[in-house]
Amino acid sequence: MKIDVLTLFPDMFAPLEQSLIGKAVEDDKLSLNLVDFRKYSHDKHNHVDDTPYGGGAGMLLKPEPIFEAMDDINAADTGKKRVILLDPAGRKFDQAAAAELAQEDHLVFICGHYEGYDERIRTLVTDEFSLGDFVMTGGEIASMAMIDATARLIPGVLGNSVSPETDSFQNGLLEYPQYTRPPEYRGMDVPFVLQNGNHKLIAEWQLKESLRRTYTRRPDLLVGLELDKTGKRLLREVKTEEHTKQIEAEQQK
Amino acid sequence: MKIDVLTLFPDMFAPLEQSLIGKAVEDDKLSLNLVDFRKYSHDKHNHVDDTPYGGGAGMLLKPEPIFEAMDDINAADTGKKRVILLDPAGRKFDQAAAAELAQEDHLVFICGHYEGYDERIRTLVTDEFSLGDFVMTGGEIASMAMIDATARLIPGVLGNSVSPETDSFQNGLLEYPQYTRPPEYRGMDVPFVLQNGNHKLIAEWQLKESLRRTYTRRPDLLVGLELDKTGKRLLREVKTEEHTKQIEAEQQK
Repeated sequence: MKIDVLTLFPDMFAPLEQSLIGKAVEDDKLSLNLVDFRKYSHDKHNHVDDTPYGGGAGMLLKPEPIFEAMDDINAADTGKKRVILLDPAGRKFDQAAAAELAQEDHLVFICGHYEGYDERIRTLVTDEFSLGDFVMTGGEIASMAMIDATARLIPGVLGNSVSPETDSFQNGLLEYPQYTRPPEYRGMDVPFVLQNGNHKLIAEWQLKESLRRTYTRRPDLLVGLELDKTGKRLLREVKTEEHTKQIEAEQQK
Repeated sequence: MKIDVLTLFPDMFAPLEQSLIGKAVEDDKLSLNLVDFRKYSHDKHNHVDDTPYGGGAGMLLKPEPIFEAMDDINAADTGKKRVILLDPAGRKFDQAAAAELAQEDHLVFICGHYEGYDERIRTLVTDEFSLGDFVMTGGEIASMAMIDATARLIPGVLGNSVSPETDSFQNGLLEYPQYTRPPEYRGMDVPFVLQNGNHKLIAEWQLKESLRRTYTRRPDLLVGLELDKTGKRLLREVKTEEHTKQIEAEQQK
């Protein structure tokens, strides 16, 4: 996969050189091209922004530098591209979007900074994404988040060290609690069932605790989820147990 | 505000040195302390992770390094802290959460990497947050996103260059389209109303286009929103116009 990033702060993308994404670049599974679009500025002070029409605080990215940077990207590679703008009004980025983008050959991210964009820049864009209902100082960190979540789904990027299949959301449930050594730490024990090595009981405990965490924290994820017979029984048990806990907690008040 | 970050990749936080957050650190509005918790490892190979009980792929962060790093943070500052874990099962991070965290004196972020945590680490934590329903290779980029969104709300951090008051979401609506020079670019014009300088008409156009963008893209944000008389009239106009557009589009098929 080829990724171009249009940004005024190419140094901010250093984190992607670390960890698994940097390894994917080394292994030629991913090429990451950072374009400082300030070099497409038209004036001697290298301005890329200007005041908004109609007044108001803050500055807006001018259309010319972004359009001309895109001209160069399109001239260098005439193939199909997804051109992505980070915008609070965009489609919510989620695991399905990451999986969709991971299928593409070429992504282009346009990172704004400070206040906003000239509206005409949107005509270059195929996708507007939002990381969530919050505002950041720029699009750089949000783009890195999307690139990280997308690139790790490219076949071979994660290697054997981690497995996307066991991720949260991948089976529609939140992950069950996990434990490693020591078996006892500061008075807290690893659940006995995990220590005794009976695979069937362990698998059932894990599914049940996945269901419990999802039921108590994100019940919306359970709506429309298809469970097998064991799953249905375990969810009934979870509901009864959590209901009992609630009654006991209320009686203690 | 004081922020400690427990991470295996302190270099990944270099982006925060750039832009407005770095300036806040320079101006002593924010202190950012990166703790490489690998130095709290107990073995000569500096391992901080181990295989999960009950089997399964991937490695889990062991409890000891995180607990002992927190011991040092608590010894250095006995004040109240919010200890934040990034977890897909956590509370969705949004602008209200950013505003809430911006009121705090001391935040601690625990960044996992790869597969997951020993469950006992959660007992140290006051808040679990999720950036969204997607999976990243680690908590570093997500923590940066939260730190960026939070720190920019600390009074004085943004300076006069940008104004959080005009942000999307701040008034409950998506932002209106904005334009800067040139008035015509590649055949696309800046709307005439913005160029003629009548403040009342400009304000009305901006509110109407904010309502339009919110109505067409995020109608959920309009539910329960209190609009004044002008706002209500403009929303009625938007609905009629969008409805007409839809009918015309269908007739052209």
